Amino acid sequence: MQNERPLILVSNDDGITAKGIEALVNAVAEIAEVVVVAPNKPQSGMGHAITIGQPLRLTQSHIFGQEILAYECSGTPADCVKLARHYVLHDRSPDLVVSGINHGANSSVSVLYSGTMSAAIEGAIEGYPSIGFSLCDFSHKADFSHTKEYVQRIIREVLTQGLPEGIALNVNIPKLTDRPIKGVRICRQAKGHWAEEFEERVDPYNRPYFWLTGKFVNQDNGQDTDEWALAENYVSVVPCQADLTAHHLLGALNQWNLNVV
Amino acid sequence: MQNERPLILVSNDDGITAKGIEALVNAVAEIAEVVVVAPNKPQSGMGHAITIGQPLRLTQSHIFGQEILAYECSGTPADCVKLARHYVLHDRSPDLVVSGINHGANSSVSVLYSGTMSAAIEGAIEGYPSIGFSLCDFSHKADFSHTKEYVQRIIREVLTQGLPEGIALNVNIPKLTDRPIKGVRICRQAKGHWAEEFEERVDPYNRPYFWLTGKFVNQDNGQDTDEWALAENYVSVVPCQADLTAHHLLGALNQWNLNVV
Repeated sequence: MQNERPLILVSNDDGITAKGIEALVNAVAEIAEVVVVAPNKPQSGMGHAITIGQPLRLTQSHIFGQEILAYECSGTPADCVKLARHYVLHDRSPDLVVSGINHGANSSVSVLYSGTMSAAIEGAIEGYPSIGFSLCDFSHKADFSHTKEYVQRIIREVLTQGLPEGIALNVNIPKLTDRPIKGVRICRQAKGHWAEEFEERVDPYNRPYFWLTGKFVNQDNGQDTDEWALAENYVSVVPCQADLTAHHLLGALNQWNLNVV
Repeated sequence: MQNERPLILVSNDDGITAKGIEALVNAVAEIAEVVVVAPNKPQSGMGHAITIGQPLRLTQSHIFGQEILAYECSGTPADCVKLARHYVLHDRSPDLVVSGINHGANSSVSVLYSGTMSAAIEGAIEGYPSIGFSLCDFSHKADFSHTKEYVQRIIREVLTQGLPEGIALNVNIPKLTDRPIKGVRICRQAKGHWAEEFEERVDPYNRPYFWLTGKFVNQDNGQDTDEWALAENYVSVVPCQADLTAHHLLGALNQWNLNVV
């Protein structure tokens, strides 16, 4: 391995034509062999969805040039990682799975709704060190120029240090502004939720329909959270796991009377 | 509250016409006022997907009779809970959100892919005690007759004891067989993954397509896991949380050198 370039699988949720994946591929290609399997259309908010009951399409793409093996896939980000692993890469194992760079933050509870992070967590479940990258800027024309040095630094450190099995890093990078980025902070996921509003409209046939809109509510003032770090203009790094068990509650629940007589 | 019946919101991922939600509504209606908002089509494997960029439809349904307020929704299970909370229930707060009964197990890592559990976890994120129920039988014609006593017992205990904020219970009930169900076990989520195979076929236009198939691989022999409990014919109950942070890794990651010079 010492003399070989590492193999890095790249996916995202904004689709293979998004500016964010182009920035990620360009950053990664300087330090590794890159294979891309990414959705052929935007898949934001897809959470950890997988495609059941419908077949998937996979089409080779030259969007990143002739040097980079790339496919667009009709499925979700999690589907892309599964297909990459089991079909595109055959018996080769990636040294790292990276996803993004997402157009928009995936901090706090957004990690659950995020297609970007589902690709990274899928990579972790399948046994590979994985990282999801997001830029705190929803614009399709977002400026990713400042992300490269952080993306490369974090990838290099993961390749050097490794990650325990089943762990994916959730990395959020502040939007480019006049304020300098202060550095990188290891954080926990802030407790928060989306306060939704549904905007009700009536279609030309007089039937109602609803647009989901929402505002994130941070319920957590902890200075060890991703929300705090991003507000202070740090890059936030949260180690994420696929185990949702609330281990601290197991004892209390064992005192409950749940048995049917 | 003492003299009022509790208000329970019901959703699922197999769609409003599935046998499993009928079994759940029937079980819940004996102990509570029921409001149903469920998908108008199967949404298995949707994970914690939400609908962004498309509007949602909501149509009243009388599938559960005139007594029960029910709506079918064009969105995902998580959308259903959001729309129920913010539109159907208006200023009323449910005492409990329940989802299911899923046709098929949602144990171990399947909790991440599960639409059933995403509805329950969405309820928990929004601040309500929540439970997802699954039957370990994928058949559309599955026999749910034995689930009622467990569903009612667990719901009654949650209504009595409450759940800490942000917690959803993941309940899996063994399939009905000649073996007696041994009781209810509080468990942690087993470590495991789906070993996928993609079946490649060629369509009539000579283009390839892929069917996702997979087999669950349990990597965890712990007798405190949901997989162990279900194999032993217990009902498994795992408390789940929306915080994916691998807290035990924060210290080690803080030793890394992630700063860009």
